[in-house]
Amino acid sequence: MNEQGVEGFTAQINRRGESASAPPDLSVKVELGTRAYEIVIGEGLLERSGTLIAQVSKAKAAAIVVDENTGPLYANKVSAALGACGIRSAVIGIKPGERSKSFSVYEQVCEAILAARIGRDDLVIALGGGVVGDLAGFAAATVRRGVALVQMPTTLLAQVDSSVGGKTGINSSLGKNLIGAFHQPTLVLADMGALDSLPAREFRAGYAEVVKYALIDRPQFFEWLEAKRAEIFSGGVARAEAIAECCRAKAAIVALDETETGERALLNLGHTFGHALETVTGYDGARLVHGEAVAIGCAMAFRFSTALGLADPEAPRRVEAHLAAAGLPSRLAHVRGGTGSLDALLAAMAQDKKVKDGTPTFILARGIGKSFIQRGIELSRLRDFLAAELRSNG
Amino acid sequence: MNEQGVEGFTAQINRRGESASAPPDLSVKVELGTRAYEIVIGEGLLERSGTLIAQVSKAKAAAIVVDENTGPLYANKVSAALGACGIRSAVIGIKPGERSKSFSVYEQVCEAILAARIGRDDLVIALGGGVVGDLAGFAAATVRRGVALVQMPTTLLAQVDSSVGGKTGINSSLGKNLIGAFHQPTLVLADMGALDSLPAREFRAGYAEVVKYALIDRPQFFEWLEAKRAEIFSGGVARAEAIAECCRAKAAIVALDETETGERALLNLGHTFGHALETVTGYDGARLVHGEAVAIGCAMAFRFSTALGLADPEAPRRVEAHLAAAGLPSRLAHVRGGTGSLDALLAAMAQDKKVKDGTPTFILARGIGKSFIQRGIELSRLRDFLAAELRSNG
Repeated sequence: MNEQGVEGFTAQINRRGESASAPPDLSVKVELGTRAYEIVIGEGLLERSGTLIAQVSKAKAAAIVVDENTGPLYANKVSAALGACGIRSAVIGIKPGERSKSFSVYEQVCEAILAARIGRDDLVIALGGGVVGDLAGFAAATVRRGVALVQMPTTLLAQVDSSVGGKTGINSSLGKNLIGAFHQPTLVLADMGALDSLPAREFRAGYAEVVKYALIDRPQFFEWLEAKRAEIFSGGVARAEAIAECCRAKAAIVALDETETGERALLNLGHTFGHALETVTGYDGARLVHGEAVAIGCAMAFRFSTALGLADPEAPRRVEAHLAAAGLPSRLAHVRGGTGSLDALLAAMAQDKKVKDGTPTFILARGIGKSFIQRGIELSRLRDFLAAELRSNG
Repeated sequence: MNEQGVEGFTAQINRRGESASAPPDLSVKVELGTRAYEIVIGEGLLERSGTLIAQVSKAKAAAIVVDENTGPLYANKVSAALGACGIRSAVIGIKPGERSKSFSVYEQVCEAILAARIGRDDLVIALGGGVVGDLAGFAAATVRRGVALVQMPTTLLAQVDSSVGGKTGINSSLGKNLIGAFHQPTLVLADMGALDSLPAREFRAGYAEVVKYALIDRPQFFEWLEAKRAEIFSGGVARAEAIAECCRAKAAIVALDETETGERALLNLGHTFGHALETVTGYDGARLVHGEAVAIGCAMAFRFSTALGLADPEAPRRVEAHLAAAGLPSRLAHVRGGTGSLDALLAAMAQDKKVKDGTPTFILARGIGKSFIQRGIELSRLRDFLAAELRSNG
């Protein structure tokens, strides 16, 4: 964060470690009592992963879960770093994509972890994006009723969201993430270098989650993003600072409400609509990836808030403008291949995990950075809003 | 417990409720802070389950998991009791037997729970023996990252052991219960009436777990069991008292160590050997059921303790005599179809969840009711002991 950085969100970021060539690591602590852990954000963390793990774990073995994208790029690097610290490792590969978050791949990963003789004091390492993190995390949560987990997120989305906070899971035929567990990692290593090999579309998609944190309760962060977007996309210090701020935002909410009985639901801003969009597009990444669904979902949550008379129309317009500037979609019409009928959308929303007494819980907003949890919205209001969204081709 | 009952283990049992025709319910509290719950032991609890559940839950719906034995006997009874209290229910049936603790049946049960529109504030009810409890419990632990669970154990084994304490899980191809979660129930209803329809072999098998509690740290309870065994087998007050004492024993240990980082391992007395026997017999209930494996495992733990010079040979003799009087096996030679080679047994033991640094953790004993946790036993000592056990056809 340079001197023009907005005040109020950098104070609690601690710089960690120093090196002659690279900028210092940033560090964010997730305060969860005996399960507290550190998120380290920096360059070259995968090469240093053995040393960093040895500081917090007595593991003698690790199962490294990768997909076909991250395996060839990073598995040997991490395996060598662990080996240099006396930790033997086995690599478990899965196919990339949301479809790997299935019961059958979960079974394969569990059996492979057991076959690698990973004990309770050893480690499962999730080396990849959100799919690898969710799947490997759920396997770690349940193999031997819980093995320690280290998250090494390699996508922007995973670094700012899925690797932090302990949510793990797979998909049901009835909806996304409907099967899972809360299982906090022992350590999160967010290596900036991994983002350089990310396709542009995936980086943009991750950026939707960055915007989400700003929209929840950080209006100054949103202003900073509006000013720094180009720098964040081109890499460097602003990018690491943005990631650290997101981790801090998430850590603060998770520390208050680990298992989502209350405030943690704020993190679902954009996700009630977003998950429904992923359901109706069959989790087909060629049509819509998670971050894009969240981008549209956030814009919809703001438009819904306006439709309900809660927010000024200027708020959704500013959200849409920022998403558009980042190359992100904000409307149903932006979904490749369309989103199906009104009834299909409503049915997909009824399967949301946060359904209480028949209607989903929504995260709405009174303005940028002023979001809140709203239960008991009448179905007729939701139906009218979705019908209007489907008519609009803006 | 009549006046001849041994002192020291009935004081904390609270009597709960009264009825003109039946003996009063017994109640045992599991003290786990915000997750504390009650185990109710009594007659006609299934018929009263709606009222009992409504006292501790605001659920509007329940998924009742049964097997082909318990479904026809009890599903309608429980469903009607819930309906009378305004709780709608869906019945989910599985095949009886250990083989249902598989990934594929787990998937089917999870999908069925979701299809029944069970929300986070609703219930999963495990109505059956240990298999139903472990499987439905694991599904409850993971559907929507955790739905409330009510255990209605219908076997002696489930009433004294698997329904209490929050362990849930399924089997891996590499061993028993290697996949699972800790998920405490909201309520346990142990209906004495259900035991009357239990096959004699299954009742005996459950009795092995009763004996286990006495062997861990309750020498007076063991004496009482030696005196009361016939009464317990014929039913009535002694049976309910024995069950309550086991629940109290388990509750005390679980309250100290919910997730088995320490003392809870004592509950695995007989299980390190027992699980290995189940593995080498392919979980084939026709050859060996879990309780029989535990009976042999307890006797082996005592003989191993003697072989290591820790206990007087009188202790294993007394254990074997009591098991034999109850019609339970105590030796490898008692397993139908044999237990395979020494190497097969050792390989099965190496997959135990409690393996640390290559050797399983054993529960050994210095005498009846004097068990303790022993790590780091040399593999050569284990090998020698198992070789001797295999040679012995006693």
